[in-house]
Amino acid sequence: MAVVTLITDFGTQDAYVGVMKGAILSVDPQAVIVDITHGVSPQDLAQAARELADAFGYFPPGTIHVTVVDPGVGSARRILAVAAAGQVFLAPDNGILPAALARVRVGAAVSVENRSLFREPVSPTFHGRDVFAPVAGHLSRGLALDRLGPAIDENGLVRLTVSGPRPNSGGGLTGTLIAIDRFGNLITDICQPDLERLAGRESWRTVTVRLGTEEIHGIARTYADGAPRMPLALFGSSGRLEVAVRDGSAEVYFSARRGLPVYISTR
Amino acid sequence: MAVVTLITDFGTQDAYVGVMKGAILSVDPQAVIVDITHGVSPQDLAQAARELADAFGYFPPGTIHVTVVDPGVGSARRILAVAAAGQVFLAPDNGILPAALARVRVGAAVSVENRSLFREPVSPTFHGRDVFAPVAGHLSRGLALDRLGPAIDENGLVRLTVSGPRPNSGGGLTGTLIAIDRFGNLITDICQPDLERLAGRESWRTVTVRLGTEEIHGIARTYADGAPRMPLALFGSSGRLEVAVRDGSAEVYFSARRGLPVYISTR
Amino acid sequence: MAVVTLITDFGTQDAYVGVMKGAILSVDPQAVIVDITHGVSPQDLAQAARELADAFGYFPPGTIHVTVVDPGVGSARRILAVAAAGQVFLAPDNGILPAALARVRVGAAVSVENRSLFREPVSPTFHGRDVFAPVAGHLSRGLALDRLGPAIDENGLVRLTVSGPRPNSGGGLTGTLIAIDRFGNLITDICQPDLERLAGRESWRTVTVRLGTEEIHGIARTYADGAPRMPLALFGSSGRLEVAVRDGSAEVYFSARRGLPVYISTR
Repeated sequence: MAVVTLITDFGTQDAYVGVMKGAILSVDPQAVIVDITHGVSPQDLAQAARELADAFGYFPPGTIHVTVVDPGVGSARRILAVAAAGQVFLAPDNGILPAALARVRVGAAVSVENRSLFREPVSPTFHGRDVFAPVAGHLSRGLALDRLGPAIDENGLVRLTVSGPRPNSGGGLTGTLIAIDRFGNLITDICQPDLERLAGRESWRTVTVRLGTEEIHGIARTYADGAPRMPLALFGSSGRLEVAVRDGSAEVYFSARRGLPVYISTR
Repeated sequence: MAVVTLITDFGTQDAYVGVMKGAILSVDPQAVIVDITHGVSPQDLAQAARELADAFGYFPPGTIHVTVVDPGVGSARRILAVAAAGQVFLAPDNGILPAALARVRVGAAVSVENRSLFREPVSPTFHGRDVFAPVAGHLSRGLALDRLGPAIDENGLVRLTVSGPRPNSGGGLTGTLIAIDRFGNLITDICQPDLERLAGRESWRTVTVRLGTEEIHGIARTYADGAPRMPLALFGSSGRLEVAVRDGSAEVYFSARRGLPVYISTR
Repeated sequence: MAVVTLITDFGTQDAYVGVMKGAILSVDPQAVIVDITHGVSPQDLAQAARELADAFGYFPPGTIHVTVVDPGVGSARRILAVAAAGQVFLAPDNGILPAALARVRVGAAVSVENRSLFREPVSPTFHGRDVFAPVAGHLSRGLALDRLGPAIDENGLVRLTVSGPRPNSGGGLTGTLIAIDRFGNLITDICQPDLERLAGRESWRTVTVRLGTEEIHGIARTYADGAPRMPLALFGSSGRLEVAVRDGSAEVYFSARRGLPVYISTR
């Protein structure tokens, strides 16, 4: 009995996810299926990559992670199955996997081509249901990775161009607001190591975060550390720098939207 | 251990679905519960019928499908349990089931009346929790269908008036836009056999789809076949004709809404 | 194998809930996880308390209910584990639990402090993942409650100030609209016993409900009892007085929002 996780851009309004689960259970009725998120913005590969990279470490050994954000569905793009960190990753070869694989030991990698494992007829528009789901079911039942298709070179995977935070002319860092969560917290692409390189590990007091015309001095530890209704900066649970408003919404406070620049300086 | 699926118009914001699952597991702790969708528009029987008909075939034998879109809850309408295609279908007798049963072999059909299986007291406003859920739990544990209530004539089920696509004066077909998915794809009530009757199986090139003032020539195979940001027509994963925009939203492109007519012609 | 339920204000757009499930399954791969709702308004403790109180009774004995609405995460607030009604309740000590515990027999209550059960490092901003989830997993595997931390006095729990309906100068009751569900039904804080005390058990005909400038006479039994498109009042499935519109939305009909007063009188 294995855990099979799902990350998609299907949303939960339509039946796409439910049907995928049916197709998984049709192959392995014992599979334990967990939704990580179906809220990836349509076709947003960078977001899918980030959700997977941030989440997989919290799942048990043997988990099979299925990520279906797949603008090229039905075209010639490969489908990848990669064993790494004691888990298996299944995704289109469109840039989703490298972020998750970056910090772990990668074992075998194959191109999923064994049609006898697919659900026939394979719809050219819904490989989630007809390819990813049954293949995940077979893996969940214990099928060996090399039965899915030919081995491939892990270094040949399609990669996304992700810029990430960069040094700016003032001697600080310029990052980007990459996500806004349900609480209105503003999540940046600046990670704890980025700030440590800039300010030193024990110097969070010396950091200033600027967003729009507002400056936030120092890095707080928890949301409750801020003054009510005032902005604060802190490292969120994925290690990314966030701007939040205690008992409020930073999204509303800053009229923020994804893509805004965030400036870091130290004194 | 059986799979129990749920289709409702309850949404996932409120706790209605969670409570139904508690009531199922209170009867059968082994049941594997799968959400097909809770996004049916409130009281939209035609949509519920379509979701069920499109989805049930992807689930394993023995699955129990529970569909609760039930404007008449607490009134005299019957509750149906029907064995068909190796699965069991549980729904109000309000027109939801016939579409799913149309193309499969129907076995026994009963009216669910055995109150000893219900959760007491039965709320007149939430049979999902107090009737459908415990009955699904008993079925999941293996209770025979004829223990639920008296046999009924499957031909006596309430049926919806579904118009579907119709021939138009130009020698083509007029269909309707019946759903818009999260990607902004526009889903019509025109199915592949409808077009085959009109244009012949191998003649997708000769088909023109008109929506608003825009004409789309030919039927593509995948979303990736279109030109970026341009509309295309294709058969979606349920076999329905869809209008999509590559790397974009057809909903936005066409300012589309459910109910719009879609015209098909051939040359 | 135990059921673990989740109530949070995390929504389902982000991956927070999925990651919590991974952390539970990492401790107990056999846990059966059920979402009650993740739609609690951000940091709305009263709503979380109500959702839990209304839902827990529908789950099987041994269920572990995890409620994470936790504005004080990472601060000094306690985390509670309480055995009651044959189930276990896990929540911050911020007022969520008393409503659920009010009408049942409470057994042991402890403050969760045994760090050896937590996931390290414990993020100061996401105890749902690093504390609640692994502790729920250990409970699900059968760990005794007294292993979680020191016993506490159940009477010392933080309590919310919940006003509830109150007698008004006209000899009736004034309640509040506390929730609006997906159907646009308006849910009040007036429960069936409140009305029974006012009007007597068998006198629903004599009750008038006033909302805005509209008066509704009598209490209906089901949604189908109303005239099409007209408002009616009835007791919903949680025993709360609701105002609904048959085949329509009372939210739209009344331009209603949470917090509006609702007046009850009898003749």
